[in-house]
This record gives sequence, structure tokens and C-alpha cells, in this order.
Amino acid sequence: MNLERAAKKLGISKERLQSLQETVIKTSSWPEPRLLRFEKETSGVEAGTVVFESGEIIFGYPKIRRAMMLAPALESHFSDTLAVEEKMNGHNVRISSVEGEVIAITRGGFICPYSSEVAQRLLPDGIFEEMPDLVMCGEMVGPENPYVPKSIYPTDSIDFYLFDLARKNCKKTMGVHKTHQFADDHQVKATALLGEFHKDRAAEKIKRIIKRLGRRGREGVVIKDPENRVPPLKYTSSEANCNDLAVAFRYYNDYALDFFLSRAVREGFQSVEWRETPEERKARALRLGESILLPLAETIERKQAGENIEQKVQIRVRSLQTAREFEFHLRRSGIRAIFDSPEPIDEGYLIRITKLIMSTNDKTQALLEGEMW
Amino acid sequence: MNLERAAKKLGISKERLQSLQETVIKTSSWPEPRLLRFEKETSGVEAGTVVFESGEIIFGYPKIRRAMMLAPALESHFSDTLAVEEKMNGHNVRISSVEGEVIAITRGGFICPYSSEVAQRLLPDGIFEEMPDLVMCGEMVGPENPYVPKSIYPTDSIDFYLFDLARKNCKKTMGVHKTHQFADDHQVKATALLGEFHKDRAAEKIKRIIKRLGRRGREGVVIKDPENRVPPLKYTSSEANCNDLAVAFRYYNDYALDFFLSRAVREGFQSVEWRETPEERKARALRLGESILLPLAETIERKQAGENIEQKVQIRVRSLQTAREFEFHLRRSGIRAIFDSPEPIDEGYLIRITKLIMSTNDKTQALLEGEMW
Repeated sequence: MNLERAAKKLGISKERLQSLQETVIKTSSWPEPRLLRFEKETSGVEAGTVVFESGEIIFGYPKIRRAMMLAPALESHFSDTLAVEEKMNGHNVRISSVEGEVIAITRGGFICPYSSEVAQRLLPDGIFEEMPDLVMCGEMVGPENPYVPKSIYPTDSIDFYLFDLARKNCKKTMGVHKTHQFADDHQVKATALLGEFHKDRAAEKIKRIIKRLGRRGREGVVIKDPENRVPPLKYTSSEANCNDLAVAFRYYNDYALDFFLSRAVREGFQSVEWRETPEERKARALRLGESILLPLAETIERKQAGENIEQKVQIRVRSLQTAREFEFHLRRSGIRAIFDSPEPIDEGYLIRITKLIMSTNDKTQALLEGEMW
Repeated sequence: MNLERAAKKLGISKERLQSLQETVIKTSSWPEPRLLRFEKETSGVEAGTVVFESGEIIFGYPKIRRAMMLAPALESHFSDTLAVEEKMNGHNVRISSVEGEVIAITRGGFICPYSSEVAQRLLPDGIFEEMPDLVMCGEMVGPENPYVPKSIYPTDSIDFYLFDLARKNCKKTMGVHKTHQFADDHQVKATALLGEFHKDRAAEKIKRIIKRLGRRGREGVVIKDPENRVPPLKYTSSEANCNDLAVAFRYYNDYALDFFLSRAVREGFQSVEWRETPEERKARALRLGESILLPLAETIERKQAGENIEQKVQIRVRSLQTAREFEFHLRRSGIRAIFDSPEPIDEGYLIRITKLIMSTNDKTQALLEGEMW
């Protein structure tokens, strides 16, 4: 790899790039093509940025910051109009073609073999031959998403929704209009564009959108500058906040502590901003309390009944090689999982996977046996 | 100070003691008498242990572990009978006489000037002349407790409840019976002894005690081996868990993250152990959710109304010197507080104190102005 050229494209010095190797920058030699990945944001380079041996760079998708108090956040952040897109609940990938292979890169900068196969299957042929520098940024969602399985979207398996476009070696993304135009032209699904509003009226409009999305179990919105001049913001429904808590409390000993606090605090701000009546606030408190207590109680009762605390997911693959590679990919991501024998189906195999939730499992068992906290 | 003798009494080598200085062991030269304090548990010496220049040692009161699942914890921990005492909600002090002065030492091993004055006022004269080695371990509670103000106890100001006795230079405490005997003999208040039960029947009894205490806003119980053979355990009411959460969410950015999770998880275990019906569980979920949402909303609304997020407490002192010293003590403990001018009252002064909750105050202000999370 020509370090000097890579450094230049990254916008840092060659010496800086060298000094970051093996601390912030890790090598990933599998699956091919080999790459360097930025584990953390550093020197203005997003986490998840990858550099291939050819010197090609795919920049990390910028982290989207969250509005807590919507109206003042919109007012101070945007200049006039803003576009509202649905925020989908799955895992974020960047899809591109490198050395002749269509690959899907995770947020962390790993090539995910399963997501890559899904991308190869779903995307129209020739899209990257036409535009070899194209990077498609989007969300993989559906019940056969093994990271975040969700049955709230119109797919029985897994689907891909484009939310932005970028080019290799280029930090900047192309923004709302080009992305939706591209999606229309190439018959690729894109996240729903729910409207464009002047920022003065947007908070009220978004509140209505968020309530409607919440009722349907959907996550929330990403709010973008149509001209792509400022970074987008995200804002989520109460149902999504509570659903996050429900998952986290089901696996209470395996989640980072700030996960719990941040979701609760969001609920407080939304309740205040929406000027809820005591009855509405009581309903929100019950939803919040149940999202904590019921999954906790269920986990404890399952363990009490002798079951293991685990999560069952499934994937559908065309090639058994993909399944084997995905097993390895989960392991290197620190996830312990047991893969059942593949079941042949039309055009491939269904594979059931049991993800072990070791820490919560063991902690709950110990506490049930009278161990002290 | 004779380090060799101190080390011997602590049960560690002189070299070890020396090597711990300025890392785990800190010097506190104020208020007098000067002392060394163990900031953390180390080499079997409890955190909060203090060594005076005379070489006298007051050991830290051992941290009491918490039963999460009561019945199996009692079964595995105790040998036959157990004594149940009320756990009071205030701050824990060890009171002793050193160099002719009655002092109250906090959990962290600081001499608290206010608690010391309270101890001098409340304890019968001559108690330490009779027993110069005595260490009285107990809880300071009441509305004029500036750390944990609570109006649920029968005092308008602050009171002291003994829960154990120890001797200087001696790790072991004297246990339930000697403590209550001592309290009777010397007319000192002690934490209520709520019963002695065989461990097989105790979980059911304690459940009833806990429910009754919870209804009265009381915290919970400490469960002790009457013969003092094994360390005590603690167990708290749902109301106390939720009240902790309410305080923490009122000051959501100033609390340690594990505070939030641990209280929620306790609620899950209690609900399962008590085999709650769906209706009982719903009531608990609402209590839990309200203890999170309502204080959060109140904090946000107060800030929205232009108020500062702060906590008002008050103390009553005989001498203005105590107030000045307490102001310094709070500052060294990392608490920012504004002391109002003393108001003369019978036998002393009432002093209103405003504790600043800086982090939550500033964070809430920023989020209300549209700052992102």
C-alpha cells in the first residue's frame, strides 16, 4: 500500500498514519480484500473508515447526533427547510465494489459476509460497473437481520434501504435529493422521505410523524438539510426508546450502562416538550416502567424455569460458505453463537442461530441461587 | 506515628503500609486530630479505616452486601436463626473519642464537623470516659441531615441510631445483642430490632416487614446473625428502590451510571420472588416508571422556568465554628454548596444550604437550548 497517497486522501500526514497503526488502526485480512480500519474517530477521520491495499478509501458514515429537545435543536441547527426521512431499525452498512467484489462494510469497518451476500442478491446487476466509485449507505432490516431482528418492515427475510450515497476516497455524501433520485433511477429501495418543512413548522410536523411511527412500532426520523450543508439529526419515538430499554433489560448484564440512562432521559425531554397532561405522562411512565420490569421479570423467570438466556435469530443464505464465514465474523465481533445445521430451502439454506447472552445468563443464575449483588 | 505498630494492628507489613501511602492511604490533617485514611479496601483493611497519630485505629465499617433473591440468600448465608433490624436511610458514621474529643467519622474516613457536633450533643456525657476504646457505629437520620434529608423519622432535626459497636484497634464488631443491651443501658437510640426468625421462615416474615416498611416510606432491613458469625445482609423495599431512582433522575447527570441499573434490577427480582400477579406487576411498573419520568420532567421544567437545579438542605448548629468547618468539609468532599447567613435560634443557629447540582443543571440548560445529546 502506498501510505503517502492514503494519508493524503485521509487528510493526515504519513507519519500520523504510521503512528496510528496498531493503536487506532487495525488490520483486517479476512474476508478479502484486506483492509485497514479505523476503530475510533481520529484526526477528523470517522470511525469505521477503511483503507484497501489498492489505496482506495471508504470513509465511515458520520455518526448522527440526537436532538433531545426538538424545536430548539431544529431552530439552531438548520438554516431554513429540512427534509424528514424515516430512521430504520437494523444495521448500518456501506456497500461498494472492491477488487471486483460487492461487499458490505459494517459501522466498525468489518466486511460482513452475510450482509455482503444479501447486498449481492438484492442490488441490481451492473450498478457498480456503471459507477465503480459508488458507495451505497443504507440500513439492512427485517426478521432475518441477525443483529437486530425486526418484523415491522415489509419483508419476511432481510431487505436493504438506501439512505445516502458517497464516493470512494471522498468524505462528503451526496444528500437527500441525489439519493432518492438514484434510488428511483436504479430501482433500489430507499428510506421513506416523509416531507420537507420549513424549520419553524417542522417540530410540530415531526411530532405528528413520530407519534404515527411510534404507533406502528417504527423507530423515528432522521432530519436532513436538503442541500446537505449541515449534518443530519435524529429523533426517536417513545415506543422505540422503550423498546430499546426492553431489549437492554432482557439482557441487563450485557449492556453498557449509559444505554439505560440515555433512553430514560429522552423520555423526560419528550414528555416536557410535548407538554403532556398528567394522564399522558402517567401512560408514558407505565410504558417506561413496563419496558424495564417486564423483560427483567421474564429473564429471571426463564432462568428460574431452567432455560438459558439466549437470543434466537436466523439467516437465509445462498451459499454455505457465507454461513461459515458469518459464524467466524460473529466470533471476531465478540458474539458467542451456536449455528444449527443448515436447512435446505429454495435457492439456499435457512440457518438458525442461538446467540448466547453469557453475562446475563450467569449473573441471573447466581442471583437466583442467593448470591449477593 | 509508629508505623510498625500501626501495620501490625492493621494486619499488614510495614513495607506494605508504606507503599500504600499517597495511593490508597491519604492524609487528612483537618479537622484535628490528624489521621491517615484508607480510601479503598486493600489487603483486607476496609475502606474508611483511619489511623491516628497516636497509632489508634478505627476500622471501616464493613460494606453490607445485598440479597437480590431473599429466600435462597438467607438459606445459603445463615446457619439457623437470624435477627432483622430496620435499615435506616441517612449517613453512616462511626463515633468515638480521640485525644479527648468526640468525633464522628464518615464512611470515607473523614471527620465530619457537623456530625461530630451532633454526636457530642446527642450522646450521654461520660460514655467514652467509661469506655475510651468504644466505637459506636450508627446512622444519622432526619430532615436536617444535609447529605440525605428525610422527614420519615421521629425527629425535626437530626438523630442518631446505633446499629453496632466496635472497639478501637479491633476489626470485629460486637453484634446485635451487645449493641441493643448497650443502647438500653446507656439510653442511646438503636435501630429497631424487628424480630428473630429461623432462616426457613424468615423470607416470608421479612417480605411482610418490607411491605409494611415500604408503605411507611422506610428503606428496608439489615439481616444479622445473632451470634455475629457471618456478615449481615441488606434488603430494601420497592418504595426505597424507586425513591433512590427518583433522586437520581432528578439529578440525572450527577449520578454514577450503575446506580440506575442496580435499582431497576432489584425491582425485577423482588417482583419475581414475590410471585406478583399481572396487576401487582403493573402497579410496580407504574411506580418504577413514575420514579424515573416524573423527577426528570420536573427537573427539565424547573430549568425551563429559569430555576437552577439545586438541592436545599439545612443544618442546626450550636457553634458557628461548626458551620464554617462543615462548609469546608463539603467542599473537600467535592460538593459545591452556598451557605446562607446563620439564623439565630434557641441554643444556636439554623443554616440553610443550597447544594449546586452543576452537571445536571448545565446539561439540562444546554439540551433545552437545542444542544444534541
